Amino acid sequence: MTYDQKFMALKDLPPTPTVPKVANYILFRKSDKELILSGNGPLRGDKIPSEYLGKLGKDLTVKQGYNASRLTGMNLLLVAREALGTLDNVDYIINIEGSVNCMDDFTDQASVVNGCSDLLIEIFGENGKHTRSALGCNALAFNICVEISMTIRMK
Amino acid sequence: MTYDQKFMALKDLPPTPTVPKVANYILFRKSDKELILSGNGPLRGDKIPSEYLGKLGKDLTVKQGYNASRLTGMNLLLVAREALGTLDNVDYIINIEGSVNCMDDFTDQASVVNGCSDLLIEIFGENGKHTRSALGCNALAFNICVEISMTIRMK
Amino acid sequence: MTYDQKFMALKDLPPTPTVPKVANYILFRKSDKELILSGNGPLRGDKIPSEYLGKLGKDLTVKQGYNASRLTGMNLLLVAREALGTLDNVDYIINIEGSVNCMDDFTDQASVVNGCSDLLIEIFGENGKHTRSALGCNALAFNICVEISMTIRMK
Repeated sequence: MTYDQKFMALKDLPPTPTVPKVANYILFRKSDKELILSGNGPLRGDKIPSEYLGKLGKDLTVKQGYNASRLTGMNLLLVAREALGTLDNVDYIINIEGSVNCMDDFTDQASVVNGCSDLLIEIFGENGKHTRSALGCNALAFNICVEISMTIRMK
Repeated sequence: MTYDQKFMALKDLPPTPTVPKVANYILFRKSDKELILSGNGPLRGDKIPSEYLGKLGKDLTVKQGYNASRLTGMNLLLVAREALGTLDNVDYIINIEGSVNCMDDFTDQASVVNGCSDLLIEIFGENGKHTRSALGCNALAFNICVEISMTIRMK
Repeated sequence: MTYDQKFMALKDLPPTPTVPKVANYILFRKSDKELILSGNGPLRGDKIPSEYLGKLGKDLTVKQGYNASRLTGMNLLLVAREALGTLDNVDYIINIEGSVNCMDDFTDQASVVNGCSDLLIEIFGENGKHTRSALGCNALAFNICVEISMTIRMK
């Protein structure tokens, strides 16, 4: 199976994301051979599942955070697919930046961001391996539990 | 009007920023066709207007945050202008990263960072459209309410 | 002395970092002429010195934060050295992103991140000068006090 076939065979793919009405930016920018993706979150279309709202260490378990991060990764790849026509035009993943909405004493940001990292490797194999930061923060837009941005190398 | 003429016609432009004395870095780096700008804030020269100090959700209204973000954008473009001689040498804006100093329950980071995003589109039109992240954080240097970094594609 | 000789002559170099077992990513990615390094911290091998755990403004002095940031810079350069064979293959440092684990009222992120910035200039001179962001956050993985990522231009 190609990258694109593997991705489209995933269960529970959300609709392709759109920019929130309150904001003024674009979801992707191509520059030379790089595809830069805006920070995205655990949305299903214009809805945020209630189990993905709030802070790690209080409102969500690490497993829920992991699932939210995986859903965020799906949204990022849906945007990439819209930009590229097909995910088969991905050469490799360069980098992701993950910010985890959390309590002051939460220290398992890595396990949350793994939801997105694991998805990338599931779809792209060796070419899905990426550098990353996995940071904590005290608040995120719309009270989403995780926000992730991504840089992709295009074929 | 050209990009540079539009920018220089803005009201309330601050002085061109300099690096704070306590810090050890440069305000811009050119690399190939990219101009990378260090995180900047709502300063006027070496002064921070007191209405732009503190946290969203406690010390500032969203409108004040928006204005601070617009002023931050002006500082970033002043640095770009120093790097490039004129903003007419900007090809397009690639990306901005916005961090909003806020209370734990603040969720309108998008509206704050829009102050910078709107400025970019006002000056550069279609070429000002950019990807971005708009994150919350619990503290920023000098207690500024917002910090934004930017990557620009040069002509 | 070359870059590499200067670096290897540093006192107290830690062992070359490895990816934490709980995480699923790579420590560096080469893309064209850029070397991108994952967020790293003040580790010595797989151990975190206890004086580098916790939050600035409560658990650590600014001097301790500075030292932690310097150690983080050493880890980043050890990863770069593994990627490049020798630090003499560094052309220049492009950018660092520093996140400081801190209390809500801490405002001296710049002095903490200087620990890494000063190291870069000590080793690479003019070519070590870089853009950066120095942000606060309320929590970091494993309770480390600082996390820094880096982008390097390769020769």
